[in-house]
Amino acid sequence: MSDRSPASPSLATDVGAQHAAPLHSARLNSPEPVSTFEVAAPDTDSRARCGRLHTSHGVVQTPAFMPVATQGTVKGITPAQLREVGAEIILANAYHLALRPGAGLIRELGGLHRFMGWDGPILTDSGGYQIFSLAPLRKVSDRGVEFRSHVDGTSLFLTPEDVVRLQADLGADIIMALDECVPADATPLQAEAAAWRTLDWAARSRAVQTASGQLLFGIVQGSTYKELRLRQVRELVGLDFPGYAVGGLSVGEAREITMTVAEETAAALPEDRPRYLMGVGLPEDLIRFVGMGYDMFDCVLPTRNGRNGMLFTGSGRVNIRLAQHARDQEPADPDCSCYTCRTFSRAYLRHVTVANEMLGGQLISLHNLHFSLQLMRDMRAAIAADRFAAWAAERVARLTAEALTPTLSTSSGQALSQREKEKAGA
Amino acid sequence: MSDRSPASPSLATDVGAQHAAPLHSARLNSPEPVSTFEVAAPDTDSRARCGRLHTSHGVVQTPAFMPVATQGTVKGITPAQLREVGAEIILANAYHLALRPGAGLIRELGGLHRFMGWDGPILTDSGGYQIFSLAPLRKVSDRGVEFRSHVDGTSLFLTPEDVVRLQADLGADIIMALDECVPADATPLQAEAAAWRTLDWAARSRAVQTASGQLLFGIVQGSTYKELRLRQVRELVGLDFPGYAVGGLSVGEAREITMTVAEETAAALPEDRPRYLMGVGLPEDLIRFVGMGYDMFDCVLPTRNGRNGMLFTGSGRVNIRLAQHARDQEPADPDCSCYTCRTFSRAYLRHVTVANEMLGGQLISLHNLHFSLQLMRDMRAAIAADRFAAWAAERVARLTAEALTPTLSTSSGQALSQREKEKAGA
Repeated sequence: MSDRSPASPSLATDVGAQHAAPLHSARLNSPEPVSTFEVAAPDTDSRARCGRLHTSHGVVQTPAFMPVATQGTVKGITPAQLREVGAEIILANAYHLALRPGAGLIRELGGLHRFMGWDGPILTDSGGYQIFSLAPLRKVSDRGVEFRSHVDGTSLFLTPEDVVRLQADLGADIIMALDECVPADATPLQAEAAAWRTLDWAARSRAVQTASGQLLFGIVQGSTYKELRLRQVRELVGLDFPGYAVGGLSVGEAREITMTVAEETAAALPEDRPRYLMGVGLPEDLIRFVGMGYDMFDCVLPTRNGRNGMLFTGSGRVNIRLAQHARDQEPADPDCSCYTCRTFSRAYLRHVTVANEMLGGQLISLHNLHFSLQLMRDMRAAIAADRFAAWAAERVARLTAEALTPTLSTSSGQALSQREKEKAGA
Repeated sequence: MSDRSPASPSLATDVGAQHAAPLHSARLNSPEPVSTFEVAAPDTDSRARCGRLHTSHGVVQTPAFMPVATQGTVKGITPAQLREVGAEIILANAYHLALRPGAGLIRELGGLHRFMGWDGPILTDSGGYQIFSLAPLRKVSDRGVEFRSHVDGTSLFLTPEDVVRLQADLGADIIMALDECVPADATPLQAEAAAWRTLDWAARSRAVQTASGQLLFGIVQGSTYKELRLRQVRELVGLDFPGYAVGGLSVGEAREITMTVAEETAAALPEDRPRYLMGVGLPEDLIRFVGMGYDMFDCVLPTRNGRNGMLFTGSGRVNIRLAQHARDQEPADPDCSCYTCRTFSRAYLRHVTVANEMLGGQLISLHNLHFSLQLMRDMRAAIAADRFAAWAAERVARLTAEALTPTLSTSSGQALSQREKEKAGA
């Protein structure tokens, strides 16, 4: 049924098993009705727009931020707390879940929503980025990608079709086509080869049966090459996906290039489909990219920063470990209404962080998520009131006023190392 | 004011500072009115009793289990979740908090309740056990104990008076006198010397001004020597404490000795004061010791086991890491109504535990705490209905039916290593 490599038999049991008898009712993946996404309120002075994305598990208001639940849990946060901070959709990772505990097992247990106790919309990333960043010894061909599991070293082979089926097993509301990511310093030839392969994989993914109601998004690659990106957009749009993601940005390229490519790509994507910028980001960046017309974002920074004692506040990031917070009675952010800010002082957050208590990471992650989600609510209100551009300028100025190194940081891991590099070089 | 050693000047700034100008209204520590503790319903077929302990931050129903918040946080659990699982009182550790972030700092910030966001009753342990188990290079004399901080190596000296004042700074509702703990293999002479010193320190602690409304408990030591224990009880009772703790048990002695000493000591303590058995424990042990007339317990096992993937259930402990739970749709405990059991399957708890996700420890800790606190509620109901003995026999039989090594495990750390030893030797 799938074109698995006979050289990697472990796949059949470990990852791709149980496709033969799908539990979900399945249908041929046909173009979604345009009404899946309604653009409700475009802003006049920017490309920002409000929208409503309809999924099998409810409506997502856009611009939307998706907390990241890589392994089927937003680190340190319960589903009840996700609701409490106002998350409307979360992101999980098909690659991680397929390796552990297995997509077939999750399907058997009633799907990812039931498994992880979250009944709202879920988007699963295909894992392309993870395969190209985490898996050792990967070998990519037009047919698919062979790699070793970073969990147990098992040799695996996945085709784009497999990846769609894995996500059908998981039962996510929005699923992503497998893509090939290249590093920032890829030559035009490398970038073009990966882009065409990504396009071919997108077409093959589009032809696979998915679970009823699942929305398959295509991913625009093309590295930093504008013409390549625009050609990708045209070709992908020809396949008529219900939504489009932009990947392969903020992987080490210069900030100006990220901004230009992101802006030109967004402008080329159709108005009536959601645009998802993968791996963003920092509060100020969320605002900037919403201004370019992006509708969806995901990033690990709220929780990763949370575990590292880094607080999001309206006037920039705060390192709670600093001695200056030892006696600070103020909450994490005086303007915030989250549980952490209603209950605890910075002095307490510093204490539990310095003492390596789990609660430090939990409370700061909760606050950072609330902060990011509140920012999206504020953006939607500003767009609805047709005053986004002015609002955005003021908020970005406040957010970056005290920043030592105001860098664009879209993809979390790279963002941090990029910032470190700049600090070292500055 | 306090008799600090000139050889350890760091104490003044790090631990014992700011006694000169107490913020709390203070008074001479006089015998508390008996009405602080009401014994409401003694059981006829056992020594179990229900009671109500009045504190400055509310009434505690006994028998009571106190979740442990060593460093001012119950590991992985928010104060809101503590309320949710029905905790009425929690335990913090004066030694740990005095070393980090400092008792003076906590007082400055409004006291421990405000600092940690918990407005219910708090008991602080004096830290005797920690000084004797964690601190390197300790030197004990009648005057007090000199030791190095396990946090930063600072040399410190604490008198029993200092320890009361530290707890006054923290503002706990119930505070403990400093005691000297000896290992299980202490000779009669060693045990007697430590016991007399503990008694002397208790008398000196009793004479110190405490914050208004604070209840100071004395601690019975005496190792495994019955006569020594009983003499300790008589002498301590002569000092008329509002409550009595029993320490120095389950530190490695044989199980039968623990049971005998605990039972005889409880029987010798006055009926009209709460009896607190320190460091207990496992569900089956909580039931047994309540049957002896103990009213209060604390133990790190619900949260430590939680972080290690060990679930409390009505039919014994379950190691969630085992492969047999990979596809288990059942909740942690089918009879439990906690958030974890209402929301997640064992399969999910296994997944997040095996994947080393924070949420595993959080969810299982939450369940284990709910389990322990529900057990106390069940015990209080059984006592009130005067059917505790029969109820206890049935519950202990169920709890231990499947246990491989049903051992008495009161003090967590020792309990585990003791069990390991027995496994290895059995």
